[in-house]
Amino acid sequence: MIRVGVIGTGMIGRDHIRRMTTVLSGVRVSAVTDVDAGAARQVAEGIGAAVHPSGEDLIADDAVDAVVVCSWGPTHEQYVLASIAAGKPVFCEKPLATTQDACLRIVDAEVARGGRLVQVGYMRRYDAAYRALKRVVDSGDLGTPLMMHCAHRNPSVPAHYEKEMAITDTAVHEIDMVRWMFGEEIAAVRVLIPRQSRNGGPLQDPLFLILEMANGALVDVEISVNIRYGYDIRGEVVGEDGTAALGEISPVTVRRANQVATPVPVDWRERFIAAYDTEFQEWIDAVAAGGPPQGPSAWDGYAAAAVSDAGVEALQTGQRVGVSLVERPKLYHAEG
Amino acid sequence: MIRVGVIGTGMIGRDHIRRMTTVLSGVRVSAVTDVDAGAARQVAEGIGAAVHPSGEDLIADDAVDAVVVCSWGPTHEQYVLASIAAGKPVFCEKPLATTQDACLRIVDAEVARGGRLVQVGYMRRYDAAYRALKRVVDSGDLGTPLMMHCAHRNPSVPAHYEKEMAITDTAVHEIDMVRWMFGEEIAAVRVLIPRQSRNGGPLQDPLFLILEMANGALVDVEISVNIRYGYDIRGEVVGEDGTAALGEISPVTVRRANQVATPVPVDWRERFIAAYDTEFQEWIDAVAAGGPPQGPSAWDGYAAAAVSDAGVEALQTGQRVGVSLVERPKLYHAEG
Amino acid sequence: MIRVGVIGTGMIGRDHIRRMTTVLSGVRVSAVTDVDAGAARQVAEGIGAAVHPSGEDLIADDAVDAVVVCSWGPTHEQYVLASIAAGKPVFCEKPLATTQDACLRIVDAEVARGGRLVQVGYMRRYDAAYRALKRVVDSGDLGTPLMMHCAHRNPSVPAHYEKEMAITDTAVHEIDMVRWMFGEEIAAVRVLIPRQSRNGGPLQDPLFLILEMANGALVDVEISVNIRYGYDIRGEVVGEDGTAALGEISPVTVRRANQVATPVPVDWRERFIAAYDTEFQEWIDAVAAGGPPQGPSAWDGYAAAAVSDAGVEALQTGQRVGVSLVERPKLYHAEG
Amino acid sequence: MIRVGVIGTGMIGRDHIRRMTTVLSGVRVSAVTDVDAGAARQVAEGIGAAVHPSGEDLIADDAVDAVVVCSWGPTHEQYVLASIAAGKPVFCEKPLATTQDACLRIVDAEVARGGRLVQVGYMRRYDAAYRALKRVVDSGDLGTPLMMHCAHRNPSVPAHYEKEMAITDTAVHEIDMVRWMFGEEIAAVRVLIPRQSRNGGPLQDPLFLILEMANGALVDVEISVNIRYGYDIRGEVVGEDGTAALGEISPVTVRRANQVATPVPVDWRERFIAAYDTEFQEWIDAVAAGGPPQGPSAWDGYAAAAVSDAGVEALQTGQRVGVSLVERPKLYHAEG
Repeated sequence: MIRVGVIGTGMIGRDHIRRMTTVLSGVRVSAVTDVDAGAARQVAEGIGAAVHPSGEDLIADDAVDAVVVCSWGPTHEQYVLASIAAGKPVFCEKPLATTQDACLRIVDAEVARGGRLVQVGYMRRYDAAYRALKRVVDSGDLGTPLMMHCAHRNPSVPAHYEKEMAITDTAVHEIDMVRWMFGEEIAAVRVLIPRQSRNGGPLQDPLFLILEMANGALVDVEISVNIRYGYDIRGEVVGEDGTAALGEISPVTVRRANQVATPVPVDWRERFIAAYDTEFQEWIDAVAAGGPPQGPSAWDGYAAAAVSDAGVEALQTGQRVGVSLVERPKLYHAEG
Repeated sequence: MIRVGVIGTGMIGRDHIRRMTTVLSGVRVSAVTDVDAGAARQVAEGIGAAVHPSGEDLIADDAVDAVVVCSWGPTHEQYVLASIAAGKPVFCEKPLATTQDACLRIVDAEVARGGRLVQVGYMRRYDAAYRALKRVVDSGDLGTPLMMHCAHRNPSVPAHYEKEMAITDTAVHEIDMVRWMFGEEIAAVRVLIPRQSRNGGPLQDPLFLILEMANGALVDVEISVNIRYGYDIRGEVVGEDGTAALGEISPVTVRRANQVATPVPVDWRERFIAAYDTEFQEWIDAVAAGGPPQGPSAWDGYAAAAVSDAGVEALQTGQRVGVSLVERPKLYHAEG
Repeated sequence: MIRVGVIGTGMIGRDHIRRMTTVLSGVRVSAVTDVDAGAARQVAEGIGAAVHPSGEDLIADDAVDAVVVCSWGPTHEQYVLASIAAGKPVFCEKPLATTQDACLRIVDAEVARGGRLVQVGYMRRYDAAYRALKRVVDSGDLGTPLMMHCAHRNPSVPAHYEKEMAITDTAVHEIDMVRWMFGEEIAAVRVLIPRQSRNGGPLQDPLFLILEMANGALVDVEISVNIRYGYDIRGEVVGEDGTAALGEISPVTVRRANQVATPVPVDWRERFIAAYDTEFQEWIDAVAAGGPPQGPSAWDGYAAAAVSDAGVEALQTGQRVGVSLVERPKLYHAEG
Repeated sequence: MIRVGVIGTGMIGRDHIRRMTTVLSGVRVSAVTDVDAGAARQVAEGIGAAVHPSGEDLIADDAVDAVVVCSWGPTHEQYVLASIAAGKPVFCEKPLATTQDACLRIVDAEVARGGRLVQVGYMRRYDAAYRALKRVVDSGDLGTPLMMHCAHRNPSVPAHYEKEMAITDTAVHEIDMVRWMFGEEIAAVRVLIPRQSRNGGPLQDPLFLILEMANGALVDVEISVNIRYGYDIRGEVVGEDGTAALGEISPVTVRRANQVATPVPVDWRERFIAAYDTEFQEWIDAVAAGGPPQGPSAWDGYAAAAVSDAGVEALQTGQRVGVSLVERPKLYHAEG
């Protein structure tokens, strides 16, 4: 039974606590902390967890085998570094850190330690549809993959959503996914701005991203964050001999009122809840096995930050922006 | 943490032990037993469970909060009755018992005790697609449901599969499912025998079942157990104003070699593994909550046995065979 | 340029005249007649056709190369027989005649003449989807076909629709189609009566037909003639190794309002208009080529009548009713 | 009966002659000509048409009501201008002419004459799927259309296919289609070059076009002309509130060998033959009605040439290339 300490008991933290408490196997939440100590206490009471005054205290707790960081983005770096220093596996919600430099400091710390401890919360890699898609791509049945067409559609976004978040919060999922899907880094980013939706208010919505992979493969991503009709994530990889796409996954088909219709998920929870469950179960299993985490690494977190920064610059300047990464440490060579 | 004792460590038993040990939350397997004591010991070692010489001993163990019966069908009755006598929740793999009379003895025991303890392992009710289908039916969007078209297709069946098993092992899943889907008992069964498949050997394959619900709704079920192409379960409810069907649930769509294709599951594990997980998690949660199980009841097990018996008679005689059930005890009135 | 005379200028006759005048190649309508002489005159004026006082006069017209019979059912026999007597190709809308005996008199007349002149208007055989389905069946890719599941759904039926018409007007299309699809006669018919729709008024709606083919293959047909949601014709052939079904033929897929939806045809015109065009063009081409018609024959018209009669009896008695046909004349041996 | 003269009896000319002779209504081919007089004679014999020594002679023939130009591209201009001079409707296969200037001379001639006589052979506008898509877009159900994602995939291309033809012969269909779909001109073109397919040989394959509409809407087009798996044309319009896409139009769905599969067309004939038929029937009907043609105009032919030229420049330079058109004459204002 892995004992996990959770830093940050906001919406996402509470959701992961619920997951580890009532859904997954081989784990319990032994400690929590939050800047809002009252909130932390309330959560802790329901599950019999300890409450710590700070993330550092929680990390130091002997009853904490592994750490989950769900706190405010700017605090991620310190808690991840502290976990590495303590030699404890740490799952950090995206982003790994809020700057490339901060991400690199984490990479450096992990490299200095000589082994992986960090996993970053990019859960698309755990989605059954993306995994099935990757299996087809990796099988070689399509020949070499040359392009990918993606769409990320939200019915709406909350009031605090700012225009750069289309890159940093939304497209960043595609950024990590395509690096994993192609097994390649992203070399450059363009952002085109189509005719704008009346639903988008002050945002730039939709956007059209073009990602150039290091091997020349080209990925296009429609980002529509106010498209009303549902939460819809699509992707089609184009190979030399054929294509493969995320399936139309609907449990039911209704013939009614002059239509054959299948429902679209209303939000990301409905679409990706199983991916979150799988992501955490596999992380817990890896921690229990005593080996390194198998999921997105600190390097992936750094690369996503670099591409995301390039994307923001591309959005602001209208230019094609190259992505330059430091040399990839050997520690991360085996990854997809 | 619910402590479960498992009676029967054959293929299904081991699969449920794996599920409770490595997938689900809030449960551990504390004790096992099997007619093959060596097999039981081997399983127990890996998970730190006690080994009991008999099912009765296991049921009596204070470290067993709830019982899972996966032993040979003819032994189900005794272990379920013993669990009821001990006042312990018991999950019994299908069939509840091998005769209607035996099922009724379990029903009587539960009624005498005055509360539900028994759940029977009909897992279709936990499948996301069937649940979505039932939600549409229950919404009234289709008007009153009048018919259902089903197909149960296996790529092949093992050598020990005998012709009555098309009813007792295969169609019985549809029998339980339609009782739940329509919220009605099945009143009569017919079995028609189409032209036979060369793949079926000495079996009668395919079969075509017609189930008449008590309210007149008509359900037809194609049973093809050697259809080679995959494991495919289909169902469409026809209402007054429209229809709803199990979706085409494929994670990936491949355009290759002159086709747009989606894969079909190779076997029931691939198709229903998530349903088994959900079934068990909900059962464990209900046990933990201290209330009665919410899944298929002893009454459902009895009714399935009665319809299954009628189906076998219909298969053997070529006649329409009525199903007569005893009066339904109040204990089971609230169920779907 | 084939010159066609049309007997009957009601709704269907006018539609075929429109088709031959403005859609198809190699044909013109040279003469018309109708019991309502004024209606015939009005139609004739628009297209420069002669008007005849009777069907017999029209058939005798030297400026009529071929005859289309669209008059009231009870008059079909006399006009088809007169066309045969005149040695002119005749296309007769379904039914060929209103009794089996009348159909047999037409078969006998054609046999006596020693060559085919008659084609009956069963247009499903010309539908692109049914043809594609038959190609798959005939390819052997599915192994031997063993079953077929069909559904015939109308959104509503007109006020004059009587309960036997569910067999004689609606199911008769499936009756002809499955004879052609399997290349086999239908040996027996059952009609089961499910729970009834509130939309059906005094009709028996829906119905569930079971057709036993001479080789043992089993066909089930749902007939729902007031199902509101659209005109929907479905069919799936089940073979030993797989199945093939009519495709979901929709020109457009709309993602809107929480659904992925494709439209369903509103009526038979929308669904089958192209099949009617193909049916007539191929008939005209065959007439122009001077050979026998390639479409449904007088024998097919007779067999459909025999099965339809059996279906009506099965509906009225609740019994399984066998179909007995006279020996098939050699003239019709080559057909599918 | 419209009498049509056909200039050019190569592959496309013969296909249109077949269409007008054996498929369509209200038309016959009365005259033909070709640079290969023998080929023209051979075609003429089979259909009883006159043979003319030149296109100009054919156009002057009183027995020619309307002209179809299927000759070599560089000759289009002279025949179209001669038809205009003769006051005869002329259907010109794409391209209208081989340079923008030549197209403008045709536009000027038509404007000088004061009425439309020219239709250009862009047949996508007649495809049932594109028409259904445009009806959804025009209905306003999606809100304002903002983007369109397209793919044009050929299994292979002939040996004489050169790299610019990906724009001038292939993408030009999308160029005309999106102008019609959005009711807007294209303002600029980009061509991105993804990782290249081993199937493409010396071609640049695939390509990724980005078309900027005058109103800011953005269209992306994947051009893959050696993708082996089939001829596949896809398109999805993204609006403010939803999307609409060309349907998956398959007449049959086959469940076999672990897949649910629908066939993909093998070539453009299979995919678009019905569109060609509709295109010609509507053109003939418009000629017969004595009004102007309703299809793609000389202006459309000119605009397609201008965008195609920009596309070729964009391909060669890697730059975004603006499209500048002359002012649109009033004669063409009503078009979509």
